Amino acid sequence: MVGVGIIGTGNMGADHARRVHARTHGARLVALCDTDPGRLAALAAELGARAESDAARLIGSADVDAVIVAAASETHPDLVLACIAAGKPVLCEKPLALTAEGCLPVLEAEAASGRHLVSLGYMRRFDSGYQAIRAAVHDGSVGIPVAIHCIHRNRTVPLGFTAARTLSESVVHEIDVVRWLLGDEIVAITVLPGRRKRSTTGGLDDPLLVILETASGVLIDVEAHVTAGYGYDVRCELVGSAGYATLGMPTATLVNTSTAASQGITDDWLGRFGPAYDAEVQAWLDTLADSAVGANSWDGYVSAFVAAAAVRALDSRERVAFELPPRPAFYDPSDDLGGGSPSP
Amino acid sequence: MVGVGIIGTGNMGADHARRVHARTHGARLVALCDTDPGRLAALAAELGARAESDAARLIGSADVDAVIVAAASETHPDLVLACIAAGKPVLCEKPLALTAEGCLPVLEAEAASGRHLVSLGYMRRFDSGYQAIRAAVHDGSVGIPVAIHCIHRNRTVPLGFTAARTLSESVVHEIDVVRWLLGDEIVAITVLPGRRKRSTTGGLDDPLLVILETASGVLIDVEAHVTAGYGYDVRCELVGSAGYATLGMPTATLVNTSTAASQGITDDWLGRFGPAYDAEVQAWLDTLADSAVGANSWDGYVSAFVAAAAVRALDSRERVAFELPPRPAFYDPSDDLGGGSPSP
Amino acid sequence: MVGVGIIGTGNMGADHARRVHARTHGARLVALCDTDPGRLAALAAELGARAESDAARLIGSADVDAVIVAAASETHPDLVLACIAAGKPVLCEKPLALTAEGCLPVLEAEAASGRHLVSLGYMRRFDSGYQAIRAAVHDGSVGIPVAIHCIHRNRTVPLGFTAARTLSESVVHEIDVVRWLLGDEIVAITVLPGRRKRSTTGGLDDPLLVILETASGVLIDVEAHVTAGYGYDVRCELVGSAGYATLGMPTATLVNTSTAASQGITDDWLGRFGPAYDAEVQAWLDTLADSAVGANSWDGYVSAFVAAAAVRALDSRERVAFELPPRPAFYDPSDDLGGGSPSP
Amino acid sequence: MVGVGIIGTGNMGADHARRVHARTHGARLVALCDTDPGRLAALAAELGARAESDAARLIGSADVDAVIVAAASETHPDLVLACIAAGKPVLCEKPLALTAEGCLPVLEAEAASGRHLVSLGYMRRFDSGYQAIRAAVHDGSVGIPVAIHCIHRNRTVPLGFTAARTLSESVVHEIDVVRWLLGDEIVAITVLPGRRKRSTTGGLDDPLLVILETASGVLIDVEAHVTAGYGYDVRCELVGSAGYATLGMPTATLVNTSTAASQGITDDWLGRFGPAYDAEVQAWLDTLADSAVGANSWDGYVSAFVAAAAVRALDSRERVAFELPPRPAFYDPSDDLGGGSPSP
Repeated sequence: MVGVGIIGTGNMGADHARRVHARTHGARLVALCDTDPGRLAALAAELGARAESDAARLIGSADVDAVIVAAASETHPDLVLACIAAGKPVLCEKPLALTAEGCLPVLEAEAASGRHLVSLGYMRRFDSGYQAIRAAVHDGSVGIPVAIHCIHRNRTVPLGFTAARTLSESVVHEIDVVRWLLGDEIVAITVLPGRRKRSTTGGLDDPLLVILETASGVLIDVEAHVTAGYGYDVRCELVGSAGYATLGMPTATLVNTSTAASQGITDDWLGRFGPAYDAEVQAWLDTLADSAVGANSWDGYVSAFVAAAAVRALDSRERVAFELPPRPAFYDPSDDLGGGSPSP
Repeated sequence: MVGVGIIGTGNMGADHARRVHARTHGARLVALCDTDPGRLAALAAELGARAESDAARLIGSADVDAVIVAAASETHPDLVLACIAAGKPVLCEKPLALTAEGCLPVLEAEAASGRHLVSLGYMRRFDSGYQAIRAAVHDGSVGIPVAIHCIHRNRTVPLGFTAARTLSESVVHEIDVVRWLLGDEIVAITVLPGRRKRSTTGGLDDPLLVILETASGVLIDVEAHVTAGYGYDVRCELVGSAGYATLGMPTATLVNTSTAASQGITDDWLGRFGPAYDAEVQAWLDTLADSAVGANSWDGYVSAFVAAAAVRALDSRERVAFELPPRPAFYDPSDDLGGGSPSP
Repeated sequence: MVGVGIIGTGNMGADHARRVHARTHGARLVALCDTDPGRLAALAAELGARAESDAARLIGSADVDAVIVAAASETHPDLVLACIAAGKPVLCEKPLALTAEGCLPVLEAEAASGRHLVSLGYMRRFDSGYQAIRAAVHDGSVGIPVAIHCIHRNRTVPLGFTAARTLSESVVHEIDVVRWLLGDEIVAITVLPGRRKRSTTGGLDDPLLVILETASGVLIDVEAHVTAGYGYDVRCELVGSAGYATLGMPTATLVNTSTAASQGITDDWLGRFGPAYDAEVQAWLDTLADSAVGANSWDGYVSAFVAAAAVRALDSRERVAFELPPRPAFYDPSDDLGGGSPSP
Repeated sequence: MVGVGIIGTGNMGADHARRVHARTHGARLVALCDTDPGRLAALAAELGARAESDAARLIGSADVDAVIVAAASETHPDLVLACIAAGKPVLCEKPLALTAEGCLPVLEAEAASGRHLVSLGYMRRFDSGYQAIRAAVHDGSVGIPVAIHCIHRNRTVPLGFTAARTLSESVVHEIDVVRWLLGDEIVAITVLPGRRKRSTTGGLDDPLLVILETASGVLIDVEAHVTAGYGYDVRCELVGSAGYATLGMPTATLVNTSTAASQGITDDWLGRFGPAYDAEVQAWLDTLADSAVGANSWDGYVSAFVAAAAVRALDSRERVAFELPPRPAFYDPSDDLGGGSPSP
């Protein structure tokens, strides 16, 4: 039984806590930590876990074998570094750090530790739909990939949200998943701000049309749309030289009670990607040891690096081309078909 | 941690064993039993479980807290009786017995024990699609139920399969699930044998068109088709006075590589209802104590009773009306919205 | 240019009048007739056609080369007989007569005339969806037909509507189209009245579950549902030994503006089968001469004969088996793949 | 009866000829013209039309009231000018001319004639799906339009085809239809050449990702893909501030005969847009007089102007912004909801 400690008990952390508590095999929820004592106490009581007010103490606890970091984004690098220092596997919600530079100490510390201890929470890699698209690339069904169309719509965002956050918090999922689908790196980005819908967005540039180009010439367009209003809607179609593969809509019972048929759309990512989160956490628990599952620190660094280029592209209204730093040998993918980084 | 023992290591038993071993929370696989020593030894070795050659010894083992019965159907009543005698919760794959009469000793022993120890493996009750249809009935979305259309297609069956088995092994799933969807009992059955497809069926009457009528007048038609050839295809549409609810097709990535679009169809029930089996076993493990979850012994008795009427209807080519024996007070549903038996 | 006269200017007749007036090739609308002078005058003025108060005069007019009968059902046989007497091709809306016996004088007069002058308005034979199902039977794609599932839902019916009318006015479309799809005759019928929905139906038995059996053993189930409420919904799936063919939903732009996706459903048959009516009338105009297109008098007789058996089955609550009278040689289908009657 | 003459008897011209001959109301096919005498004679014989070897003579014929131009693109302006000179309405297949400049004489001559004689064959405006999207914009269902996603895939193209032709022959349909959907003008274009698939394309840049920006800030992305292989596939989703509207797939009977469901995809535009061509030609015939139906000369000019900008964008790999010349008063749209040009 793996003892799990979770830092952060907001939406995402609480969801992970309930998952570990009731729906994982081979693990038990040991301790929770949050800066909000009331929220912390309530969840700890509900799930019968120890409430820790200090994250370092949680990480250091003898009964905590592995840590999930779901606290505020700015705390991620320090918390992950503490886990590495303690030699404990950590599943960190994205982003690894707010900037690409902020990821570097993690890369260095992890390499120095000699163990792959860090996993990043890019749950789409565990969604059966994305996995089927990836399989259609790997088995050759669709031929050589030439383009990917993505839609990423959120119902709404808080007041004061910015287009830069659309890129670094939403589009970063597409940045990760297209690298993983293609085994190919992004080399240029263009961002076009769509028509400002002042009535609904308070001046926010939304939607954005984001164009990604990969080293081998695949073109990816993303409608990044955080005030879509009607629901959470994520779509992906990969086009190849011999056909295409497109995400099915999530299974839903059709209920028809008027002059139109209706099929539910989820409100948010927890609904849409619930089974993917389950699979992600279980896969992480099953292989806490030194193996490549899901996204790793290098993937976290790359997505932060590319997201930063996207923000520059948004600000400059220009196509931004860039070159990734070379991948450290420590992060060489051992198995391209696994969840690891793209192959060259 | 609940110690689980599993009797039977064929397809279904092995699937449950792997599920308990790797995908359940709060349980561990302790022991396996099978009459085939080679198959037993192999699976026990794979999963690190104890191999027991004697079912009674498995049931009696101190580290076995709960039992899954997935052995040959004719052994079910005796194995379930042994579990009741040992006071251990048991999840028995359907059928509870080969005949309705064969279920009676189980009903009696369970009632005498004073505890609800027996669950039946009608996994469709745990499928999110059927649950959404049931919700559309319970929340009034579709009005008063008036009809249900069911399709139950299997790719193929072994040589020598009979239409009676189509009814008692396949249609029995529809018998259970429509009772559960409607909270209503079946009171009459008509079975029409379809066109004999000699080339593919070796003389088997297939498909069958089965008409069920409920106490409150809902009509259910079932295409029971065990040589459908192209795949495992289960559908259900419930029609009410104000609309309908219909099972969505399982999520599937669409891959299009020719002049037609294709979307995968599963080969069998393990593929189609995998998540439902997972949910069923977890729900059982979560509530081993005396509560009504899923189908119980009474449901097992009723489905055997109705399936027998279906076989008489097939043989006689006549509509067979019948009256169920009164439900013992022990099986009064405490919560109609739970997974228990239909309310009157 | 074929001069067309239309008798009856209600919904169906007015629709045909506008079709002939504006959307047919090689024809012009010459004259209209109706027993309601105001309605007649208004439509005649709108379309620039002559208003005739007397149907016999319309049929006899020198500029009327062909007649469409869309008047009240009880007038159909006499009007069709008058067309035959005048030697003029006639497209008669179903039914040919209110009873099978009522069709006999038409069969006799037409045979005596030596010309195929009568077409029946079974428009589904001209729907591209049904045609594709028929093609999948004829080209062997789905193997040997074994079953057909039909749904026929109307939004609502007038007060005082009866289950007998559901059979003779709605289900008669399924009776015709399954004969045409299969090239096979119906030999037995069972009708099960569904749960009476008193609140919405005023005591009408609705829906009905109708089971048709064909000479070669194909089973057809029809949900005949005239108070479905949410819209006009017609579906058909033909199941064969090697697969199935199912009507696609009509093309519709999806408009999504809330938490659910919606796609329009038509209110009635004129919306759903508009293109089929267009094709039917054009095909009729294109081949007014002695050739088999669409349904003919014999098909009209058979559908009335089978519908009468259906009403007996409803009244008796029994399966009604029957034998059709032999088909007169005059109606031998010359081309089974054309629109004519089923082959033996 | 409108006498119609058709110049050009290739695929498109022959299709129009058969349409006018057999499926239009109020018109008859009078004369055909082609530079290939054999092809001309064969079609003329088949349809009973006069074969004219000289286009000017066809246009001048007394029995030719209206002309369809479906000859080689380079002949379009001269043929249209001849129709204007003869005072005869002309439906010209796109393009109006190979260059925007080549359209100017037509604009001048038509304005000088004082009559709207020229219609352009942008058939998508007559497709019920695009019309429903436009209706969802006009009735406010989807809120303020913010983006449009288009896919335009052809199965294959001839050897030697160029990316410039993809823009001026394929994407020109999207250029026209988005102007018509939005009532808004395009003001900038970016073209990104996709990954070259040398094996299948002989060096052709394919697919192209085309980004259009409108005056009011709507972003349109188009996957222009002429070697898609699997079929002709045209899609369109318009995204607004309150929801989206997306083209339904064309109705198709689903035929399932293996482990996957299949639904036909058409080979080409004649299959996909057949009903739209029918509606286009009938609408043109119904309003030959001086009214705005469908695309007009100004629309032909604008689409050529924008397509030329697209080619410059392709060549330069830069975003090309441009300003349209002012629209001559002669082409002021009288009715924005009709088929005419966008409103300012």
